[in-house]
Amino acid sequence: MKNFNYKNATQLIFGKDSELKVGKEVKKYSNRILLHYGGGSIKNSGLYDKIINSLKAEEIDFIELSGVKPNPRVSLVREGIKICRENHLDFILAVGGGSVIDSSKAISAGVNYNGDVWDLFTGTPIKHKCLNLATVLTIPAAGSETSSGTVITNEDGFYKKSTGHPTLRPIFSIMNPELTFTLSKYQTACGIADMLAHVMERYFTNEPNVDLTDRLCEATMKSIIDNGLRVINNLNDYNSRAEIMLCGMVAHNDSLSMGRIGDWASHDIEHELSGIYDIAHGAGLAIIFPAWMKYVYKHDINRFLQFANRVFNIEINLNNPEETILLGIKSLENFFRELDLKTTLKEIHITNEHFDEMAKKLVESNGYVGNFVKIKYEDALKIYNLAL
Amino acid sequence: MKNFNYKNATQLIFGKDSELKVGKEVKKYSNRILLHYGGGSIKNSGLYDKIINSLKAEEIDFIELSGVKPNPRVSLVREGIKICRENHLDFILAVGGGSVIDSSKAISAGVNYNGDVWDLFTGTPIKHKCLNLATVLTIPAAGSETSSGTVITNEDGFYKKSTGHPTLRPIFSIMNPELTFTLSKYQTACGIADMLAHVMERYFTNEPNVDLTDRLCEATMKSIIDNGLRVINNLNDYNSRAEIMLCGMVAHNDSLSMGRIGDWASHDIEHELSGIYDIAHGAGLAIIFPAWMKYVYKHDINRFLQFANRVFNIEINLNNPEETILLGIKSLENFFRELDLKTTLKEIHITNEHFDEMAKKLVESNGYVGNFVKIKYEDALKIYNLAL
Repeated sequence: MKNFNYKNATQLIFGKDSELKVGKEVKKYSNRILLHYGGGSIKNSGLYDKIINSLKAEEIDFIELSGVKPNPRVSLVREGIKICRENHLDFILAVGGGSVIDSSKAISAGVNYNGDVWDLFTGTPIKHKCLNLATVLTIPAAGSETSSGTVITNEDGFYKKSTGHPTLRPIFSIMNPELTFTLSKYQTACGIADMLAHVMERYFTNEPNVDLTDRLCEATMKSIIDNGLRVINNLNDYNSRAEIMLCGMVAHNDSLSMGRIGDWASHDIEHELSGIYDIAHGAGLAIIFPAWMKYVYKHDINRFLQFANRVFNIEINLNNPEETILLGIKSLENFFRELDLKTTLKEIHITNEHFDEMAKKLVESNGYVGNFVKIKYEDALKIYNLAL
Repeated sequence: MKNFNYKNATQLIFGKDSELKVGKEVKKYSNRILLHYGGGSIKNSGLYDKIINSLKAEEIDFIELSGVKPNPRVSLVREGIKICRENHLDFILAVGGGSVIDSSKAISAGVNYNGDVWDLFTGTPIKHKCLNLATVLTIPAAGSETSSGTVITNEDGFYKKSTGHPTLRPIFSIMNPELTFTLSKYQTACGIADMLAHVMERYFTNEPNVDLTDRLCEATMKSIIDNGLRVINNLNDYNSRAEIMLCGMVAHNDSLSMGRIGDWASHDIEHELSGIYDIAHGAGLAIIFPAWMKYVYKHDINRFLQFANRVFNIEINLNNPEETILLGIKSLENFFRELDLKTTLKEIHITNEHFDEMAKKLVESNGYVGNFVKIKYEDALKIYNLAL
């Protein structure tokens, strides 16, 4: 186990009707906020009105910035920064899913930075004060509601980059599973794939002697799988919606990373895909992760055996460990397919046309991605081809 | 799953040599502190000198109060409160295990309270500002390093009572597994029993639809059991010491309580025992918990089946579920015995002499203890007798 330093002070306000508390909670920190969200969905569902009424009841001034899209764009982030500066806003309330929260974090990071916010995604460290932010979560997937990271896409060349800082963790996150009832089957499935991938990225580590966090990861994966199958067959089931919402948070609040270094190659490899094709991140991960696993499993046979055995209950065939491992990967693919996700690029009509471009961009900064196995240009090409 | 509100902002500074950072960390919050500890063990181990040097290097003024004993006494708490008030100390550094941390928390709660601190353990809620506190943990057991609660014994009648408040969570906790190498086999075993009990108290709940937290509990219990057996056979093994230290924290940081209400009867029943006999809390729990399980298991057959099956890998006998449950309880007793703990009161020379007194005291405040099953006077007597 590695030495570590961990703090996650995000307050979780979880359960039915919890969104009605938003005004009272915001009031503890600010009177002038940016209200940041996506489009019409929160208006159609009635959530928008509830939020506005709760803010007004506490006499909180707010300026709205809507229009966040999946794979949130740096252009809107720049607009948000300008609004916060011009109106002296000191708090951002994100109402939405990972994209809205990530966009909010980028605005939070950019307001007090003397330069273009994209710098903070391309190597310039965050050393200045970020604005406080909080969330009302409507899509459990990205885990951004308690994480310290954000991923933003630069339309100028379709670069998708991430940054992070401890002060970017939300002050509080309001999580009412009922707010997720309106998510479609496809959106729900993509979220489930994303949160499962967040655990798997942490699970595949080279760090030895990480028994507790291994087991906590396995517990979370099993719960995502069981409740994922339940919710996909009954989108209005509060109990499985609640489990999935909680899983998405645990998957990415970094408690599963204590004492270990995760991999994150699959996320990076997928980011290049969704940077170009604008497909949902979770849908891309359901294709990329199994391909990555097939490419790297020989690096640590025991870890992949443990995954197959403890997560998918596959008995270990001691005479043919590789068979067990491949059954584990197959079980993961089967799970994604039960969610009605695709597990090959062909099925989503993506050819090898941009593989070379994607693989080059992928390794542009460091020459490789991933910690468990270093994935270089040639490896990335092979993984994209395995995903075809 | 119940609605919940969760925040745990304790910073964990975990790993080798982490105690050397104590001065720098304290300096962020205070220049005048109470240094609170037990007796000679931190002097013998060299930890005392490291702490003193680190504080002096940062020019932090400190006043020492040593003498904390297992089952920490309210008299010493009162002394600490007096010292803090007279010397205008605004921060408490606890160096030790659960008793030292609990004593520190009680001092922290009492300094700004206009009345006797024991009031705060007998019904008066904490509404005033508590002093900041931090810990250097030397005994992983009580989980007090990130919890919001404290248990104190009043020598005047040997009452053992608890209280809690979110602001009593330590600001930071320094956790170096090497500091636990000097714990004896018995101390180590008692700590392991205590942390396992903390998870079990949370596990036995009447709340339905708590799949993720069930699985996280089971993961933590399995890790405590596996690494408990390892460490007891090799007291200087860093890896299992590190797992046990991490388990003790996870067991009691309340993340396993999200959306559920735990039981806590066994803790209360044991508190009466160690309040009178001054035995180690963990040693008492190893006796009381199996007795409580035998007494209550019929209340929720499925939960006890799940415990036996998932924690101790016992196959469920569908034709005789009770057999499976009793095998699960037997496995728990066997685990305690492998730690060289006793599982009956007779073995530690306790008779039924004070059972009546203990059972009366136990239910004095509310008429019962426990949430999973309400344990009244007669039930408590039966459980004490089952533990004989």
